[in-house]
Amino acid sequence: MKEIYLDHAATTYVREEVRQAMSKYYSEEFGNPGSFHTIGLRAKEALAEAREKVRKLINAGREHEIIFTGSGTESINMAIKGVAAANKDKGKHIVTSKIEHEAVLETCYYLEKREGFEVTYLDVDRYGQVNPEDLKKAIRDDTILISIMYANNEIGTIQKIKELAEIAKEHKIYFHTDACQAGGTLDIDTQNLGVDLMTINGSKIYGPKGVGLLYKKMSVKMHPLIHGGGQENGMRSGTENTASIIGFAKALELAQSEREEENKRLLHLREKLVDGIKEKVPKVMLNGHPTERLPNNANITILDVEGEAMMLYLNEYGICTSSGSACTSLSLDPSHVILAMGLPYEVAHGTLRFTLGKRTTEEEIDKVLEVLPGIVQSLRRISPVNLTLEEVQK
Amino acid sequence: MKEIYLDHAATTYVREEVRQAMSKYYSEEFGNPGSFHTIGLRAKEALAEAREKVRKLINAGREHEIIFTGSGTESINMAIKGVAAANKDKGKHIVTSKIEHEAVLETCYYLEKREGFEVTYLDVDRYGQVNPEDLKKAIRDDTILISIMYANNEIGTIQKIKELAEIAKEHKIYFHTDACQAGGTLDIDTQNLGVDLMTINGSKIYGPKGVGLLYKKMSVKMHPLIHGGGQENGMRSGTENTASIIGFAKALELAQSEREEENKRLLHLREKLVDGIKEKVPKVMLNGHPTERLPNNANITILDVEGEAMMLYLNEYGICTSSGSACTSLSLDPSHVILAMGLPYEVAHGTLRFTLGKRTTEEEIDKVLEVLPGIVQSLRRISPVNLTLEEVQK
Repeated sequence: MKEIYLDHAATTYVREEVRQAMSKYYSEEFGNPGSFHTIGLRAKEALAEAREKVRKLINAGREHEIIFTGSGTESINMAIKGVAAANKDKGKHIVTSKIEHEAVLETCYYLEKREGFEVTYLDVDRYGQVNPEDLKKAIRDDTILISIMYANNEIGTIQKIKELAEIAKEHKIYFHTDACQAGGTLDIDTQNLGVDLMTINGSKIYGPKGVGLLYKKMSVKMHPLIHGGGQENGMRSGTENTASIIGFAKALELAQSEREEENKRLLHLREKLVDGIKEKVPKVMLNGHPTERLPNNANITILDVEGEAMMLYLNEYGICTSSGSACTSLSLDPSHVILAMGLPYEVAHGTLRFTLGKRTTEEEIDKVLEVLPGIVQSLRRISPVNLTLEEVQK
Repeated sequence: MKEIYLDHAATTYVREEVRQAMSKYYSEEFGNPGSFHTIGLRAKEALAEAREKVRKLINAGREHEIIFTGSGTESINMAIKGVAAANKDKGKHIVTSKIEHEAVLETCYYLEKREGFEVTYLDVDRYGQVNPEDLKKAIRDDTILISIMYANNEIGTIQKIKELAEIAKEHKIYFHTDACQAGGTLDIDTQNLGVDLMTINGSKIYGPKGVGLLYKKMSVKMHPLIHGGGQENGMRSGTENTASIIGFAKALELAQSEREEENKRLLHLREKLVDGIKEKVPKVMLNGHPTERLPNNANITILDVEGEAMMLYLNEYGICTSSGSACTSLSLDPSHVILAMGLPYEVAHGTLRFTLGKRTTEEEIDKVLEVLPGIVQSLRRISPVNLTLEEVQK
């Protein structure tokens, strides 16, 4: 059975152009960019080209502002812990939101528990957006960093990053955004967004896993997370992963050049999916923002049914979805994102996330619409609850 | 011109069997091992197989003792900083050696400068070996960690790891070894070696760059370096880099199964190279231990000549070597390893490192022996110094 993969927010496949761009860097151009001989220098040159490509794509000022890392999670850890360590003399307060990815939340918990930092976790509205007024109120004299994600991995809601970054700037506080879900679909011009730090990774943009980017404006004071040979201008040591960095740069270039057209296609398919489900299944709601959301994300709640159960049944038909984020799916706790929007546990338990991608077709959406209603019907038959949309949305 | 690559200690190419093992994990089996659907579960299974393979190869007790990371440098940072953070209540003293890789040294400097730790850097003898008696003397009541490399990246000297680890055990102190240069050629049985923590990476064993292993015995208390989704049993967050992990496991398996035979071949070629140079070039010495050294390493000093100059001239003939380690080649400071052996600056400046590999042939060694004497002669003609071996070896 050929699977229908609708879990692109968890990870994407590596697209063919990216594989091709990477292919010669394994056994032919395998040099260490730190070596002085021809093989090393060619690797160094290829690395410099990839860096320059990424610099232009995100409109960074200088090459040293591009730091390649081993994952989005590493970039986030470096941004938050690195800024915290380098600026703790100025203050030990950080502001973030309640709906961040675990990489941000767990890093903040660590700083609270082990390093004596205080962290304010901003609420979000019922669509998952941070209110800029809330950010203003949260800022203190000792606030050194604000970290707000660009687009949410579960519900797809896009934050008002420009407005939030502008507030940070007015208060002379560094602003970091986790743009892992945005790299493939949204504007990532750092000058336009006004951010000081930005994280993107390869595994969500049809690039390889195990490679990430941290954009850091030159003026930002930050300590490295990983010490050693002094690669990446001293900010991230370890032999540069040339093949993956080149793959990452290629993936980002393709995603950004195609995103307008591809977003239209994804939006059309997503709307077909959501409208189709609403039409065929009673008591369904779309979670997240109605318009300010990623074009490929449909996070829906189907009342009276467990998200995990639906996900597993769909899997029997070869349809791959998620009931939350892949990163936390080992836990069966209800989504912290859904709860942060003020929705009750019943809604969090009944969520199903479809995230569409480049290979997604009309036929695949048709297939989902064909099998989902029956699955819901069977599951509702054995459900002990019978809620109404009015009850959960009040 | 086809290059003659004699810099395998800097990095190795990815061997064909490894590429093949990795190939389907990019665009077919690309799932996130944290996902619950079929595609995710297949990735999870492949990851578990790779982990089990590595567990057996290093003779670890349990699967959770295998932590996959993004590089050898990351593994080392996690081992040292993680043990330091989790055990600082017991003591803030660490013992290491003066000839460690920068990943160890810079991490130790960081702990000294920023975290109030004290670090003892053990001397080595003129062959680059740590004296176990020196370790005994360095141990204090507040020593929490000893980190000694298995084999040196510049001179190839192998340490008495079993003996050193035994001393650590007697004093109930954790023992970590950086085995990045040993993974492909030496015994890496953790039970036999008696180590608590061990670092190996992919880029030195004909595996991919950007992937490393940290072996951590269950009983070792260590904090994570990277927080987030809780992958790797909570010790190293970030979506698992399935393709590279599978490549790493395959590379380690092949290297270990072939090492006895391959070591003989390398040793023969290395001796041919060293004997040939000594025969054709006057005033040459082999640095490091005469017998307790990696079979593929020839670190030699040619008096009155700069190592960098020889390296660059050899490169003109397509022969790729190094004058130190690739990781520090951006700096022209003399090697800290050569100086730690008590040899004078003049020796450190004249070092040339040849590290042979799987593709190295007799013909390639012949080619080096053909061109090197002429290069040395030309360089000596313009050299302002004229030393004798007796002077530098006294």
